[in-house]
Amino acid sequence: MPIALPPTCCISVNCVVLGFDSKKLNVLLEQREYLIDGKKVVDHMLPGGLMTDNEDLDEAATRLLHEKAGMRNLKMFQFKAYGSRSRIKGRNDIEWMKQQLGVEIVNPLTIGYASVGKIGRKLNLHNAPKGISWFPVEEALKMPLAFDHAILIQDAIKMLQYSIETDPIIVFNLMPLKFTALQLRTLYECIYRKELDVRNFKKKMKQYEYVVPLEEVEQGVAHRAARYYRFDRVKYKKYRRGMD
Amino acid sequence: MPIALPPTCCISVNCVVLGFDSKKLNVLLEQREYLIDGKKVVDHMLPGGLMTDNEDLDEAATRLLHEKAGMRNLKMFQFKAYGSRSRIKGRNDIEWMKQQLGVEIVNPLTIGYASVGKIGRKLNLHNAPKGISWFPVEEALKMPLAFDHAILIQDAIKMLQYSIETDPIIVFNLMPLKFTALQLRTLYECIYRKELDVRNFKKKMKQYEYVVPLEEVEQGVAHRAARYYRFDRVKYKKYRRGMD
Repeated sequence: MPIALPPTCCISVNCVVLGFDSKKLNVLLEQREYLIDGKKVVDHMLPGGLMTDNEDLDEAATRLLHEKAGMRNLKMFQFKAYGSRSRIKGRNDIEWMKQQLGVEIVNPLTIGYASVGKIGRKLNLHNAPKGISWFPVEEALKMPLAFDHAILIQDAIKMLQYSIETDPIIVFNLMPLKFTALQLRTLYECIYRKELDVRNFKKKMKQYEYVVPLEEVEQGVAHRAARYYRFDRVKYKKYRRGMD
Repeated sequence: MPIALPPTCCISVNCVVLGFDSKKLNVLLEQREYLIDGKKVVDHMLPGGLMTDNEDLDEAATRLLHEKAGMRNLKMFQFKAYGSRSRIKGRNDIEWMKQQLGVEIVNPLTIGYASVGKIGRKLNLHNAPKGISWFPVEEALKMPLAFDHAILIQDAIKMLQYSIETDPIIVFNLMPLKFTALQLRTLYECIYRKELDVRNFKKKMKQYEYVVPLEEVEQGVAHRAARYYRFDRVKYKKYRRGMD
């Protein structure tokens, strides 16, 4: 027997784009503008939007990131689907949906996609429309974000933590060709969202034979010049094979 | 400006329930019946169905598994969302949707949930309605399954492979309290979907201090009696902490 379809269901995609600027991990946010009682309200959301019938999820994520942030060719991975009435945080989300989509969706579903890279040549805002910008993750999480987008950001970072445990190469893709122990630790601290013990970190670093110390040290620094390291892909591949 | 919502979108949840019976990994499938040119066609699908507006994704998965397979209190995890026109494999899926849902959905979205356990006291078909049964994974993947359900099964198993690499406890939850090397290897072979080298496997097993050999051997077997092992949770926790 035919059953009625849910009346107001629609599928959106939201992208958590994480960009490392050598000091902080940043997240890309889009400004959201709408009226509450005739007054303009401005807050932020993750770039994203509705999926159309003519595309698949991955295509929707690619299209939306291009439309919303002018970014192309980013490697994105799907990390989780979010579907719950509690995604709507209050009147702000309801009003925004009404004004933006022309309808009130009671149980909006979104699929979270994530991408992580180093802010620079490939990952930048050169083609971005107005209203989209980087925010340090820790600041963004204190801002009034749309829907459950704060949870999506936290989940994407948890996924990143999990990924670097099984495949640390992700970390070295975010580093310059040569880096100091401090630079590497800074990145780990951003990803784990906490301070790490300096000594323990150095001890661990030494255990990884694919992190190779160079004869070179920092130049023109006021403090004691730190040694540079580089990531050795060949040694890393060997190390990975040894684990299998 | 209000935009039109996709006309025929709806969200379903499908569950890949994997059950180990000490010899094979099995997957739960539901019989699907519909008419093509007036003739009854029978094939199989993963248990699942549409999400309603009053529940969240996890609740829908729990409800549907109960409705479709009579199972309660299974630990399920979401592993991936699937949204693409190519999910519809042909006329069979279109006819089934028309007859079952009363509508043709052009771009059906499903969220894949997975659960893995040992067939027995908790994971069984005692309360299952007619038409639901276990199939060995390798057989199921050769059957004509609905939509992209064969891909969902393969992805859930890949996820399981990935999970046991980071947390092998999942494997020991599928073993009896004492087990032989052959029993453990059989499970690994089911999960990796390939034969493993006997010698390498034994060598690896010895490296894991949390797999403890017992003084006990198999009783009343025609072949040479194999030694029993047990999984030591305390040693395992120590081992895990050592890795951090």
